[in-house]
Amino acid sequence: MTYDLDNLKIVGTRPIRPDGVDKVTGRANFGADFKMPGQLIGKVLRSPHAHARIISIDTSKAKALTGVKAVIVGEDMIDIAHELSQTGETAIDVHDLSLNVLARGKVLYDGHALAAVAATTAKIADEALALIDVQYEVLPHVIDVDEAMKPDAPVLHDDMFTKGLDETPTTPSNIASRMEMGLGDVEEGFKHADIIIERSYKTKAVHQGYIEPHAVVANFAEDGTAFVWCSSQGHFTVRDLCAKLLGMDSSAIRVIPAEIGGGFGGKTTVYIEPLAIAMSKLAGRPVKMTMTRAEVFRATGPTPATSMDVKIGVTNDGKIVAADCEFRFHAGAFAGSPVGAACMAGLTPYALENARVVGYDVVSNTCKSGAYRAPGAPNGAFAVESAMDELAQMLKMDPIEFRHINAAEEGTKAIYGPTFKQIGCKDVLVATREHPHYKSNLGPNQGRGIASGFWFNVGGQSNAAVNVHEDGTVTVVEGSPDIGGTRAAMAMMAAEVLGIEYERVQVVVADTASIAHNDGTGGSRVTFATGIAVTNAAEDVVLQLRTRAAADMGIDVEDVVWQDGSAQATKGDAKSMSLADIAAKAARTGGIIVGRSSINARGAGPSFATHICDVEVDPETGYIEILRYTTVQDVGKAIHPSYVEGQMQGGAVQGIGWALNEEYFYNEDGLLENPGFLDYRMPVASDLPMIDTVLVEVANPNHPFGVRGVGEAPLVPPLAAVVNAIYDATGVRMTELPVTPIKMLAALDAYKEAAE
Amino acid sequence: MTYDLDNLKIVGTRPIRPDGVDKVTGRANFGADFKMPGQLIGKVLRSPHAHARIISIDTSKAKALTGVKAVIVGEDMIDIAHELSQTGETAIDVHDLSLNVLARGKVLYDGHALAAVAATTAKIADEALALIDVQYEVLPHVIDVDEAMKPDAPVLHDDMFTKGLDETPTTPSNIASRMEMGLGDVEEGFKHADIIIERSYKTKAVHQGYIEPHAVVANFAEDGTAFVWCSSQGHFTVRDLCAKLLGMDSSAIRVIPAEIGGGFGGKTTVYIEPLAIAMSKLAGRPVKMTMTRAEVFRATGPTPATSMDVKIGVTNDGKIVAADCEFRFHAGAFAGSPVGAACMAGLTPYALENARVVGYDVVSNTCKSGAYRAPGAPNGAFAVESAMDELAQMLKMDPIEFRHINAAEEGTKAIYGPTFKQIGCKDVLVATREHPHYKSNLGPNQGRGIASGFWFNVGGQSNAAVNVHEDGTVTVVEGSPDIGGTRAAMAMMAAEVLGIEYERVQVVVADTASIAHNDGTGGSRVTFATGIAVTNAAEDVVLQLRTRAAADMGIDVEDVVWQDGSAQATKGDAKSMSLADIAAKAARTGGIIVGRSSINARGAGPSFATHICDVEVDPETGYIEILRYTTVQDVGKAIHPSYVEGQMQGGAVQGIGWALNEEYFYNEDGLLENPGFLDYRMPVASDLPMIDTVLVEVANPNHPFGVRGVGEAPLVPPLAAVVNAIYDATGVRMTELPVTPIKMLAALDAYKEAAE
Repeated sequence: MTYDLDNLKIVGTRPIRPDGVDKVTGRANFGADFKMPGQLIGKVLRSPHAHARIISIDTSKAKALTGVKAVIVGEDMIDIAHELSQTGETAIDVHDLSLNVLARGKVLYDGHALAAVAATTAKIADEALALIDVQYEVLPHVIDVDEAMKPDAPVLHDDMFTKGLDETPTTPSNIASRMEMGLGDVEEGFKHADIIIERSYKTKAVHQGYIEPHAVVANFAEDGTAFVWCSSQGHFTVRDLCAKLLGMDSSAIRVIPAEIGGGFGGKTTVYIEPLAIAMSKLAGRPVKMTMTRAEVFRATGPTPATSMDVKIGVTNDGKIVAADCEFRFHAGAFAGSPVGAACMAGLTPYALENARVVGYDVVSNTCKSGAYRAPGAPNGAFAVESAMDELAQMLKMDPIEFRHINAAEEGTKAIYGPTFKQIGCKDVLVATREHPHYKSNLGPNQGRGIASGFWFNVGGQSNAAVNVHEDGTVTVVEGSPDIGGTRAAMAMMAAEVLGIEYERVQVVVADTASIAHNDGTGGSRVTFATGIAVTNAAEDVVLQLRTRAAADMGIDVEDVVWQDGSAQATKGDAKSMSLADIAAKAARTGGIIVGRSSINARGAGPSFATHICDVEVDPETGYIEILRYTTVQDVGKAIHPSYVEGQMQGGAVQGIGWALNEEYFYNEDGLLENPGFLDYRMPVASDLPMIDTVLVEVANPNHPFGVRGVGEAPLVPPLAAVVNAIYDATGVRMTELPVTPIKMLAALDAYKEAAE
Repeated sequence: MTYDLDNLKIVGTRPIRPDGVDKVTGRANFGADFKMPGQLIGKVLRSPHAHARIISIDTSKAKALTGVKAVIVGEDMIDIAHELSQTGETAIDVHDLSLNVLARGKVLYDGHALAAVAATTAKIADEALALIDVQYEVLPHVIDVDEAMKPDAPVLHDDMFTKGLDETPTTPSNIASRMEMGLGDVEEGFKHADIIIERSYKTKAVHQGYIEPHAVVANFAEDGTAFVWCSSQGHFTVRDLCAKLLGMDSSAIRVIPAEIGGGFGGKTTVYIEPLAIAMSKLAGRPVKMTMTRAEVFRATGPTPATSMDVKIGVTNDGKIVAADCEFRFHAGAFAGSPVGAACMAGLTPYALENARVVGYDVVSNTCKSGAYRAPGAPNGAFAVESAMDELAQMLKMDPIEFRHINAAEEGTKAIYGPTFKQIGCKDVLVATREHPHYKSNLGPNQGRGIASGFWFNVGGQSNAAVNVHEDGTVTVVEGSPDIGGTRAAMAMMAAEVLGIEYERVQVVVADTASIAHNDGTGGSRVTFATGIAVTNAAEDVVLQLRTRAAADMGIDVEDVVWQDGSAQATKGDAKSMSLADIAAKAARTGGIIVGRSSINARGAGPSFATHICDVEVDPETGYIEILRYTTVQDVGKAIHPSYVEGQMQGGAVQGIGWALNEEYFYNEDGLLENPGFLDYRMPVASDLPMIDTVLVEVANPNHPFGVRGVGEAPLVPPLAAVVNAIYDATGVRMTELPVTPIKMLAALDAYKEAAE
């Protein structure tokens, strides 16, 4: 059912999150906070080369070292065919994943795992790694995506023949695939343009920068089952991927979800987990593995570097008549960048008649890229929204007005297929224009930029149970790791449906053995999809409560309504019965009351966001200060507004980091030079003003409480918003990220020179 | 639905239990196998007196000791009114429980807890206990049940006025309640008797003797929630009792079920668990508590000592015309012995027209008695079956024949109310008579006894989910601690319903936050009630599998049957689809498949058992050797015959212990003199022959696979079977248990003297 969103008691308020105290006091247990008696310490030997053939690996000395209980190399892994495994918003090729977890034949990037040891102490494990003798034949490497696409580039995979072409090529290349999507006739469209711009943009690989490194404790038992403790965005994904990689039954692996210290897309796959299980099996003892920060940077999945071309044509009155984009994303060592999502999302804030996007998924000698919060969309939006800003300048139009003229609305057909229902794209633009921030004054060297962004949000598979206890308290059992406060959101929706106090509802994220499969926490899906499951399960409880009350009252269930947390008779004069009244008698009226739901949710509502950014550029140092920043977003109904605001603030901050600071530096040998937070500079609180938030609430008709996803859209606009603000402050258009002070200063100097 | 019990593939076979490897290798984690970082060690100060007023408790020195983080006394517990809390087959008075957990005002038995401390080390905790200064006024005490009933006995509770009398008395006594039940007219019945015997019997308090002492780790968090790790027969019971004792919400306590190293009824309540939570709250750190063996003996719940009178009248052709019993059970320090069950069960193997049983529940200065496997029934059966044996002698009838003439059957009205449906009482007697054991020869000083027994078995509340994984493997989620191999039984029933291999089914006993309430493992209920829930949940899966397959085949679900693990079309020529086929597509056909069931099961099938015991009595030492022992029982359908046989063997061995060795010795000060396995002598393997088992399978029509409970009935006959065999060997009728060599020798001497 759908609820009257204007008459809610709990949804829309701001109670304390169930996991709050645990996290504030340090009681919460994260990936590395677990140990088992007799556990071994596992460590990984990683490639010191960007690209090399493995001639031989001699582990005999390592195996002979006292205290070493297991050593594995790639040859110990089972052979797996190429097969895509869905892990939420992304699909993972299990064959490639296996090679990424432990290299065979070649190492493909600096940090690529090629052997692992488990020993009684960390020191012995380190010594054992040093005793493994690997003979390499170093091969030429390639990092840059445009370089990697060239015909003479070093080829990573002999069996990679570009997919998606009219004819599959006969020579291997680094281009894994080409994709194309479109609307109307682009060439025809451009004929009607008064102004056409064509621009190119580049971005660098950027890490999610979660605080908590990957950690796992695995214990393989003699009966073939394994216990796994780790933090992830999806413990069912960890289970299923490990099962596939190791040839085990999914049911034989029990994964306990630790609390997660940040993921942002980066914890939707496995790295050390299958190694820990495999070594525990060999050693007959539990194995604990914890990545160092350097390993996280070198060998997990940052968002890819990209190279993008955008061509947009407009009429003099500001109407876009055609848009043509080419997005080239490097996927890292194995295919599977988020270029597809970039193609689908980049132009989607706009209602276009003629549009085309071509995407290339390209491999190169860096770690395999992963998902990062709205994967692909920030890059695409950076390109499109930079071009849009330039067009608004050329048209001498207000950039919001220009976007509003072209904005997507109900009935707009998106380039990736669907026709939009109720969306808030225009509402967001209007709210942005009317925000005091947009009307405020700027000083010297200061500028303002705006940019829009879009994210799909996804649904997917979720399960929930709502268990009613004899004392009238309730436990919600779900299986979605809580990253952004979703336990609170689930408790609120359940309490709202049941009509009881929020405090009487506990929420547990159950392990893989205790609840059925849930897709991972990603794609901004949890409050939407798991929220529907929890709401359904709570409604299932309400039906049972009404049925039991009706039997007690001696009337039909149709004559009992659930109102204000009580079963109330609409016929006769039976006394109303509260949830606690009915729960206390449950044993005698059919047994404990359990509400259930298992769904594959469809109809997640798309999110649109527009951000306003004010910067001041120091002409002498090139330092760019963020003066003020406002995020405006259609969030659907905000279940817990504080956590929605937190998502918007966090997304903006991460986007500012992409724009100004963050990048993977590779040296000429293809080795990562800044694998640590000292050299990889993320924005910290003292770098930034408070991020302002405006929640535009256009309810999603496909969710009982109108929820859209909120977690990813906020990372889409910031890159362009910052760069557009820099242009406004300086007159300089930056097309390569990040805009470091050095780059900024050089651009300012060049601009001055050109002007002189 | 009900299954064709003659055509089962998995039910009735003997696969390896899922928890077997873990238990054999030592991987399984029991109560004391868990620790938390920063945990304190909790210890309990116990009364050194059998009965005393607490004048004062000074904890100031203990609190001042460095390393002591929490000290609690009875006054720190909340006040709770008398209220019965159901914990499976027994009900617990929460007020009394609170006083048993920590005494207030008076200590009522040797070992009664009256203060607890939590400190950084066990040594400091011990020192702190020694520093607690308690001033007592020692009071007169009473142990024996008959003594405790006397008008001049020391009274334990000033507010105890016998319930169940026509008029409630105005003076307090130790008789908590009187109960009576009956059939027909006993006085009239005795008028038709040719032979009447009247006898009295006594038994001693006997401990369950589980290997694993009680242990708990509790962690109370600042948000008011608590995490509890412990082993028990019902983690939901632990949760709910702790919630009531501490004034918490049930949902605020999460209890993780450790493996259990034996319970036999003794782990259906709480002792140290609420103390650990309360001290964790005070200290802000986890608290671990482990009972010593002496604490287990002194302060947990053995089965009570009893005193019983039996009067039975028969005609010369062996027909019982009247029976009249009085059972006096001491409950220990607080009311609530299993005398009611004894009253209900003692005469129930027989179809009686005229019968009466009166029961007295009596308190005395021993630890509060608890449940022990068929609580009350072994005592009552000892009295009745001893008298029956004597009557058979007097009638010169075969004791089986005598019982068969009078045996209960379908249509017999039991003294406690119901009229029996299909039962196996007579089938068991026939099988016993035809067993080679019964026909074998005996040597000098050897004798044979038989005895029958009855147990109700119970149903109760159970929940289960059956989760189907993408790879076609299955996890059964249930909430009943596995004591006797029930995980195996659940997996077998699920596999049978689903038509897949047993090895593809994993079973997990989920914690209190991950599954809804389940009644405890007791009353022989799990394979019956949880078995129905699992079967229902598996059938729910089958319906969903058929529905999905039908949609795929393009036909109606009614035209798809589930056979041999596949959906098969009965119309058209669609290819059959296996569970794995359907599971692999589940995400695209509606999401993951989850089967659910939540029930309060009724209709558990009663069990009847008859045992044959051969003994040899050494006339010089009084030592009684068990030569041969055969148990015959109506088990309903045996899901896993090996584990049913194990239950029968274990029950027989425990009963032999009651008969020959086990008893609580109290000295004249009312202090327990044998609180340890050296002085409390349980039978060990070398004391006994292999116990033979005969499974009579009379299906219970109320269970889809015909299950009756099997765990308790085997402990009902042995006491009398042993004593009857001793009579057969020696001519001496022993009426007080245990029959130790000393008692035997004295009786033999007296017998010889009388004969001379």
